[in-house]
Amino acid sequence: MTDPRVGDMDPESFRRWGGEVVEWIAEYMESRESLPVLSRSRPGDLRALLPEHPPEEGEDPSVWLEDFRSQILPGITHWNHPGFLAYFAISGSGPGVLGEMLAAALNVNGMLWRTSPAATELEEHVVGWLAELLGLPASTFGVIQDTASSSSFAALAAARHQAFPRVREEGLAGAGPGRIYASEEAHSSIEKAVIALGFGQAGLTRIPVDAQFRMRPDALAEAMAEDEARGVRPVAVVATLGTTSTTSLDPLTDLLPIARRHGAWVHVDGAYGGAAAVLPELRHHFAGWDEADSIVVNPHKWLFTPVDCSVLFTRRREVLRESLSLVPEYLRSREEDVTTSLMDYGLPLGRRFRALKLWFVLRYFGARGIRERIAHHIELGQRFGRLVDDAPDWVRVAPVPFSTVVFRWKPGEGEWSGQDLDQMNLRIMEAVNARGQLFLSHTRLAGRTCIRVSVGNLETRWSHLETCWTQLQEEVARVEAEFSPAP
Amino acid sequence: MTDPRVGDMDPESFRRWGGEVVEWIAEYMESRESLPVLSRSRPGDLRALLPEHPPEEGEDPSVWLEDFRSQILPGITHWNHPGFLAYFAISGSGPGVLGEMLAAALNVNGMLWRTSPAATELEEHVVGWLAELLGLPASTFGVIQDTASSSSFAALAAARHQAFPRVREEGLAGAGPGRIYASEEAHSSIEKAVIALGFGQAGLTRIPVDAQFRMRPDALAEAMAEDEARGVRPVAVVATLGTTSTTSLDPLTDLLPIARRHGAWVHVDGAYGGAAAVLPELRHHFAGWDEADSIVVNPHKWLFTPVDCSVLFTRRREVLRESLSLVPEYLRSREEDVTTSLMDYGLPLGRRFRALKLWFVLRYFGARGIRERIAHHIELGQRFGRLVDDAPDWVRVAPVPFSTVVFRWKPGEGEWSGQDLDQMNLRIMEAVNARGQLFLSHTRLAGRTCIRVSVGNLETRWSHLETCWTQLQEEVARVEAEFSPAP
Repeated sequence: MTDPRVGDMDPESFRRWGGEVVEWIAEYMESRESLPVLSRSRPGDLRALLPEHPPEEGEDPSVWLEDFRSQILPGITHWNHPGFLAYFAISGSGPGVLGEMLAAALNVNGMLWRTSPAATELEEHVVGWLAELLGLPASTFGVIQDTASSSSFAALAAARHQAFPRVREEGLAGAGPGRIYASEEAHSSIEKAVIALGFGQAGLTRIPVDAQFRMRPDALAEAMAEDEARGVRPVAVVATLGTTSTTSLDPLTDLLPIARRHGAWVHVDGAYGGAAAVLPELRHHFAGWDEADSIVVNPHKWLFTPVDCSVLFTRRREVLRESLSLVPEYLRSREEDVTTSLMDYGLPLGRRFRALKLWFVLRYFGARGIRERIAHHIELGQRFGRLVDDAPDWVRVAPVPFSTVVFRWKPGEGEWSGQDLDQMNLRIMEAVNARGQLFLSHTRLAGRTCIRVSVGNLETRWSHLETCWTQLQEEVARVEAEFSPAP
Repeated sequence: MTDPRVGDMDPESFRRWGGEVVEWIAEYMESRESLPVLSRSRPGDLRALLPEHPPEEGEDPSVWLEDFRSQILPGITHWNHPGFLAYFAISGSGPGVLGEMLAAALNVNGMLWRTSPAATELEEHVVGWLAELLGLPASTFGVIQDTASSSSFAALAAARHQAFPRVREEGLAGAGPGRIYASEEAHSSIEKAVIALGFGQAGLTRIPVDAQFRMRPDALAEAMAEDEARGVRPVAVVATLGTTSTTSLDPLTDLLPIARRHGAWVHVDGAYGGAAAVLPELRHHFAGWDEADSIVVNPHKWLFTPVDCSVLFTRRREVLRESLSLVPEYLRSREEDVTTSLMDYGLPLGRRFRALKLWFVLRYFGARGIRERIAHHIELGQRFGRLVDDAPDWVRVAPVPFSTVVFRWKPGEGEWSGQDLDQMNLRIMEAVNARGQLFLSHTRLAGRTCIRVSVGNLETRWSHLETCWTQLQEEVARVEAEFSPAP
C-alpha cells in the first residue's frame, strides 16, 4: 500500500495470513477430536476477555489470529467434530470450505442475473442436479435460501398468496381467517412463519400424531372439514419427512388428497430427512413428494455443505414469485425477461454465492460418494438403535428410519417416578456431554424426556457410537447411585 | 482415509488445495483490475458448459478448481473490483475473507448460547463496538442478520407487535387496518416486508419527497392524522438515512415527533449511509437516530465485511423478541435465562458465525483506519461531483452527502426530448460498462433516467474516477453522433 490511509490488506499479506489460516484449519481437522465437543465456557467468559472498546489503531493479523485461538476457540461448540451427535449432526466438508473461501473473495451479490451471471446460472443448475439426486424431476425449480426457516416462510407466503389472491395488495385485515396445518411434531420454524405471515398462532392447527409420531390423516381430514364448514380458509398442509425430534415421516400419500380436496398448498419439510432420498432404496419414504407444491431440503444439514444452504424446491414457481417479488428501477436490466432473478423468490434482496460450495461438494464426493456416506450414517444409526433395543434398561421410543435414535433409560426395576426418570435421563446426558468427547441432545416425547443421538458428521465412525454407549452405561451407574428424587 | 466410502477430504489434501485457493485469491487481488468488471457472459453461456447430470464418481479438486477458473470466472461481475461503481460499491476485505474461512471450517450454528458460546458473545460484543463507532450508546442491543431486507422485516415485525399486541396469537384477520409510512425513495425491502407481514401494499403509504429527495414532514403529518382519524392504526415510520437512488437523508428529527404523536415505531434504514456515522464530522446527518426504535446498518455494504452481514440495532429488544421468538424443547438449555439466544431476534433459526469476520475487519483496520477509508471515499465522491458540476452539458440531480453521485447528460443545446435523453443516458452508461474497466448503474428520479457513481471499494482511487469521467465524455460524443430518436 502506498497510502496507508486507504486500501485493503495487500495481496502479499493475504497470501501469508491466508496460508496460516489454511494450515490452522488443516491442523484443526487433524486434532479436533482432542477438543471438548460441547464448549466448557461459562456465560460471560469470553466477554470478560474482550476489550470494552474497539481498537483505535489497526492490529496485526498475528494478534487477532492468536486471540482467535486463545479466546474464541474455548467458546466453540464443535459442530464439525465427529463426536457431535446432537440436534442434527452436520459437516462443513473440505470442498465446501474451499467454496466459501472463493465466494468470500469474489463477494458477489447474486440478486439478479446481471449482478453475476454465473451465480444465478450455477445456482439454477446445481439445484437441478440436487433435484435429480433426490429423485425429483430435474426440471424442478429451486432456489437457495439461508435456512429452512426462510425456505418454509417463502413457501407459506406463496401458499397465502394462493389462498388469498388479493393479499399482496390488500393484506390480511379484511381477508377472513386462514389456517395452516402441521403435526404436533413439526418444526418451530413453521409456527414462526405462520406468526410472521400474519396468521397468528391461532392460524396454525397442530394435528395429533400416531404412536410413531406421524401426522394422523383422519385428524387432518376432520380438522380441515370442520374449518372449511365454518368459513376458515385452508391455506397449507405442512408434511414433515424427518421430524426434528424423531425423524418420523408424515404419511404424505395419505395427506395429499385431503389437502387437495380443500385446495390447500402442500409444503414438505425435508430439511434434514430429504437428504436420504439420494438412496433409491429409501425413496419409498418420499412417495408423493414430487406432487407437493414445495419442498425444503437443507444441504447444510446432511449433505456436507457448510452452513448456510437451504434449498426450496417448488412446482409453483410463478405463485412463489408473485407472492413476494418487487423490482426497483435501479435493478431493472435488459436481461430480466430471459433470465432468472433469484431475489424474486425469497425475502432477502441480497444473496451470497452459495451455489459454489454446493457445486464443489457434489463434484468432490460425486453422487456415489454421497450415497455411500448417507448409507453409512444410516447403518451407524440403526446399529446404535439395535444396541438400545438389546439393552434391558433402555427403551427406544421411536423408529429409526434414518440415522437418529431417540431413547430413554427406563429400568425395569427401581422406584423412580416418570419425573424422576426425566431428571435422571437429563443428568445422564449432561454427564456424558461434560466428559467432552461427545455431545448429545434431548427432546420430549409423549411428555417424557428422551435422549437423542444423531449421526451426520462425515468423520463419525462406529467407535464414536461405541464410546457413546459405554459412557451412557457408566453415567447411568453414577446417576443411579447419586440421584435423590425432588422432595 | 482408510475407508474411501466414508469421511471428509483428508487434512493433507485440504492443506494442499486450501493453499492453492489462497494463492488464487492473492493473484486475483493482484490482477482483478485486468478483468471486465461487468461480466460479458450472455444468458445461458454458463449452463451450456455444465454437464446435464451430476457426476457419478467424485472428481479431483484440480478438475473443479480449473472449471471454476475457466467456466465460472467469465460469468462473474466483479463486485470486489475497484472499478465497480454501481449500486452500492462494496469490499470483501482480506481480513473479512479470513473470517469467512474460519467460520466455514468451524461450521457452528449460533442459534443459542450453548450451541457455541463464543458465537453469541462475540456477536453481542462486536455489535456493541460497532454501535460505539457509529456514535450510538454502546449499550444498544444489536443482532446480525443476513441482509437489510431481513433486518427491516424483523424491525417491522416488532412494530406490528407493538401496534397490535394480539397479532402473535390471533393474526391480522380481525385486527383492523395498519399502516407503515416510508418515503417515495425508500428501499424496495420496506415494501416487501410490509407485504410479507400481511399488511399488503395498501398498508404502505409512500410519503412524497422534497426537491432533495427527503421525506416531507408536513406530508407525513397529514397522512398520519388522516389515517388515524379514519381508524387506521399507525404501525411504523421508516426513515431512510442514505436512500438507494441518491443517498438522501430523511429529516429524522422532524419525523420523530410526528411518529411519536401517533404512537408509531420509528425504524431507520441506514443500511448503506449508516457507515458514515463513524465520522464525527458527519454525525449531524444522523441526529435523532439514537431515539429511533430500530436501526439497520450493513457492514457488508460500506464497512468492508464480506456479504452477508447486516446489523439490526434496537432500543426495544423485548418487543423484538416477543414478536417472533419460539423455543422448541430440544433447544431448551440451562443457560437460557442468563444468556442471549440470538435466534429469538429474527426469522431464521440457524445462524452462521458472522461476527468473526466483522471482528477481524474492525481489528485489522482499527477505528481510525475505518474512519480514514470512509472519509477517503467521501472525498472521492465529492470531487467527482464537482467535475459534474463544472461540466456544461451535465447536471448533478441530487446532493452528495456521502460518496454517491447521481447525474445526467443534458446538453444546453440540441433538439432531444426528455425521453431521448433518457435513452441516451442509458446508452452512454451501457457503453462505458461494455468497455470493461468500470461498472456504473442507473436510477430514475423525477421521471428521468440518471447515471449513478458510487464509491465504496477499498481499492478505488481517484484515477478510477478520472477514467470514468473520460469514458463518459467519449461515449457522449459517440452516442450523440449515432443516436436517432425513436420514430
